[in-house]
Amino acid sequence: MKQLKNILLDIKKLESAASVLHWDQETYMPEGGGEFRAEVLAYLSLMEHQMATGQKLKDELSLQINYNSGDLVNITLNDEEKRMVELIRKDLKKRIALPDDFVEEMSKHTSATQQAWAKARKAKDFSIYTPFLEKMIKMKKQEAEYLGYKEKPYDALLDGFEPGMTTASVEKLFGGLKKRLVKLVKEINKAKQIDDSILQQSFDTDEQWKFGIKIATAMGLDMKHARQDVSTHPFTIGFHPEDVRITTRLNDKMLLSGLFSTIHESGHAIYEQGLPKKQFGTPLGEAASFGIHESQSRLWENLIGRSREFWEYALPILKGHYPQIKEVKLEDWYRMVNVVKPSLIRVEADEVTYSLHIMLRFDIENMIINGDVKVDDIPALWNDKMEEYFGIRPKDDSEGLMQDVHWSFGGFGYFPSYAMGNLYGAQIMEQAEKEIPELWKKVSKGEFLPLKNWLNEKVHKHGRFYDPEDLIKVISGAPLSPDPFMNYLEKKYTKIYNLK
Amino acid sequence: MKQLKNILLDIKKLESAASVLHWDQETYMPEGGGEFRAEVLAYLSLMEHQMATGQKLKDELSLQINYNSGDLVNITLNDEEKRMVELIRKDLKKRIALPDDFVEEMSKHTSATQQAWAKARKAKDFSIYTPFLEKMIKMKKQEAEYLGYKEKPYDALLDGFEPGMTTASVEKLFGGLKKRLVKLVKEINKAKQIDDSILQQSFDTDEQWKFGIKIATAMGLDMKHARQDVSTHPFTIGFHPEDVRITTRLNDKMLLSGLFSTIHESGHAIYEQGLPKKQFGTPLGEAASFGIHESQSRLWENLIGRSREFWEYALPILKGHYPQIKEVKLEDWYRMVNVVKPSLIRVEADEVTYSLHIMLRFDIENMIINGDVKVDDIPALWNDKMEEYFGIRPKDDSEGLMQDVHWSFGGFGYFPSYAMGNLYGAQIMEQAEKEIPELWKKVSKGEFLPLKNWLNEKVHKHGRFYDPEDLIKVISGAPLSPDPFMNYLEKKYTKIYNLK
Repeated sequence: MKQLKNILLDIKKLESAASVLHWDQETYMPEGGGEFRAEVLAYLSLMEHQMATGQKLKDELSLQINYNSGDLVNITLNDEEKRMVELIRKDLKKRIALPDDFVEEMSKHTSATQQAWAKARKAKDFSIYTPFLEKMIKMKKQEAEYLGYKEKPYDALLDGFEPGMTTASVEKLFGGLKKRLVKLVKEINKAKQIDDSILQQSFDTDEQWKFGIKIATAMGLDMKHARQDVSTHPFTIGFHPEDVRITTRLNDKMLLSGLFSTIHESGHAIYEQGLPKKQFGTPLGEAASFGIHESQSRLWENLIGRSREFWEYALPILKGHYPQIKEVKLEDWYRMVNVVKPSLIRVEADEVTYSLHIMLRFDIENMIINGDVKVDDIPALWNDKMEEYFGIRPKDDSEGLMQDVHWSFGGFGYFPSYAMGNLYGAQIMEQAEKEIPELWKKVSKGEFLPLKNWLNEKVHKHGRFYDPEDLIKVISGAPLSPDPFMNYLEKKYTKIYNLK
Repeated sequence: MKQLKNILLDIKKLESAASVLHWDQETYMPEGGGEFRAEVLAYLSLMEHQMATGQKLKDELSLQINYNSGDLVNITLNDEEKRMVELIRKDLKKRIALPDDFVEEMSKHTSATQQAWAKARKAKDFSIYTPFLEKMIKMKKQEAEYLGYKEKPYDALLDGFEPGMTTASVEKLFGGLKKRLVKLVKEINKAKQIDDSILQQSFDTDEQWKFGIKIATAMGLDMKHARQDVSTHPFTIGFHPEDVRITTRLNDKMLLSGLFSTIHESGHAIYEQGLPKKQFGTPLGEAASFGIHESQSRLWENLIGRSREFWEYALPILKGHYPQIKEVKLEDWYRMVNVVKPSLIRVEADEVTYSLHIMLRFDIENMIINGDVKVDDIPALWNDKMEEYFGIRPKDDSEGLMQDVHWSFGGFGYFPSYAMGNLYGAQIMEQAEKEIPELWKKVSKGEFLPLKNWLNEKVHKHGRFYDPEDLIKVISGAPLSPDPFMNYLEKKYTKIYNLK
């Protein structure tokens, strides 16, 4: 086992080095450094791939488990070790399932498609993107065949983001969600909109930065092992639990965007810092899934960061940074940070309409990968669904199906994780409310550590020991359901918008 | 040749990745990230070493040149290619000369020694450092034996910094330098000191930063392919000619330190940016030597940055940043930035006394490596030489022999490069003055590109095609001599200090 773990740790070191280079690329790299940086990253990725599929790893693995049957060879393994070799085997099988020339072609086609997407988006001209997307879809279908699946091809892709999740299980969850969510959105749309004109001022970005760091620190993000920088798109990246980086985007005209981005990324970063260090390098030291990761960011951003109790604590602090809002009342502020408004752009969506954006994308991906949709028909499909879900229609494809980067890097199956994050987050929070005495009273005093420590214990420390569907059962005693999320939304927004 | 170059390029990619990690470590890494970072860097360095000494490289090399005899196998090679395979062979021989267990022990002992040095320096207690330095010296002598030399063991170490340089040639150069330099310092010491009390104010560091970037840009540092950050000790690091990073240190009480540090590092960075891109990865794409590198930084820092013409251009700009100095006259300012004062600390030394610090270190290293000095005797030796060269004596060893990090990382043979940089720089500049029409008039108008382009052409573009001793002949038509440097100093400081 020692040998096996050492090989994995070496692979992880390469991955960690590559992560530093990615981080630098998005934060500080001078414009002209990009060309060679891409070559270095491609080389590190090739080396990592070679090691992760190499004979040395296979030999060590085969001392523990039978690669083909999955039967244990070393019967002295404890539960953690069993799960570990099982995951190594699973990851290895996936890596090996794709032929080398397919991987190489995919890598090249991804670069080309991303460039075409950026160009097409800028020119608002879908036809530039069409042939690239067409080939990408064809290759992703091929990839699903290589990877294998039980029922639907899309299952193979979903598994890369939410292990164990299938088209059928997503359909079931989203089905339960959709009815209640669409109803809620309709009711809110009929209600009187909240006046948030006070937010349309200029808010000094240095003060945004300072306030954000204060909140992140209060949340329990360990700044001795983390830092924040600025980038075009906010993200979190962990090199090791002891070195996690977050970024934010600051705009003096968008106070809430910068603030909630810091809270969101801090949620991700607290997860990364809480992963089990002694398992670092092995699959057990990794996050459980994209959806679980997203649950941690959204829980902090929305369930905490958009709660009345949070602002009971934070509004006086914010007023210290911005005398211009010193007259604002808590109740009004609370409503302003919870404005719900149908919008065309996913990343700007509020917590209520956000999941609708995801369902739309899931519907279309499902049709594309499991069915047979002509690429030329996707724009109309997208726009019709926008009309159906939101009652609004994009002016052009750049604010329609070309708004997201995901398809251009082949990330079919990624989107559902975002909505899963909402569902996991609400279900986890429901349990936290039961187990942490006076949780909300603590939040209102800025005492976030009880929640942070509880999440460390219940979610983070398990790493990838459980598949997400098992993890949620271990935490909450029940399988994933849309009910906690919808209960939360309905209760909250009925009050905010005076629905009946 | 294509195959051989590809292997070298892959090695370079690993090296470049490691450089990004080093840069991050010195600039942005959170405190707690150091432990794992050290492991990643050690692993990258191991992989690089394995590739750089691996069979694949040897096989490809042996198709071009006979590894043992150095005879060409591929007789169709052009001059550049011949030089390239010669350098690859030389580097490989050096790498292989050191047994793996020696390299590993040295790596461990270096870490331990650096820690002991930092501790001893802080405690001002040389005895903490003694046993580590003792072992380090023993190992460096062993290393010299492994590497081989013709005359003196120290030659083997010198060659790592200044290829072709020997104890004898350094002795000869420094001998010529010493007489004139000591005389000049004595005369300056007797002269009336310049009043630079105006510099003892607080100078806003943001303005220092802005001014520094302006100057670096004017010098021709291509900021699309470079950037500046802040670190404890200023340095330059190139990941590729298209991505070069410099750092500076800013202190509101030390205006000149921040400014000249930016000019110095920009000189290094312009060299890095000017290395031949098409040779990137091969030895021909590298710098000629540490001394030549240092010549570029010092030429810009001192010969340009401390000239009257430079300040004719730059002082009005600086006054724009600092109204508090708007009454200062050019002549007074020029004298203030050229104050000469014997000091204990090398890195704070002016351009006149700097080389004396180096000669002192060379004397001692020479005795240590070529002779047989007891470690316990080094402090007294150091202090006596300080007295001899500067007429001052350190209070304790932290401002004596423990001030520099070099010995603790085994950098015996490094110091002479710094003084070589002064000599090369002055000799190169003498030639530039001959070849660039109205150079100083251009400098006085802030037109630095003629000089920068000339340096690109005469120095940078050659990479490592010439050994430094040949390069200087190609540029100036004469072997390296202390005369241009001393002529420059004597002429300049005779005026500044009204010597006769």
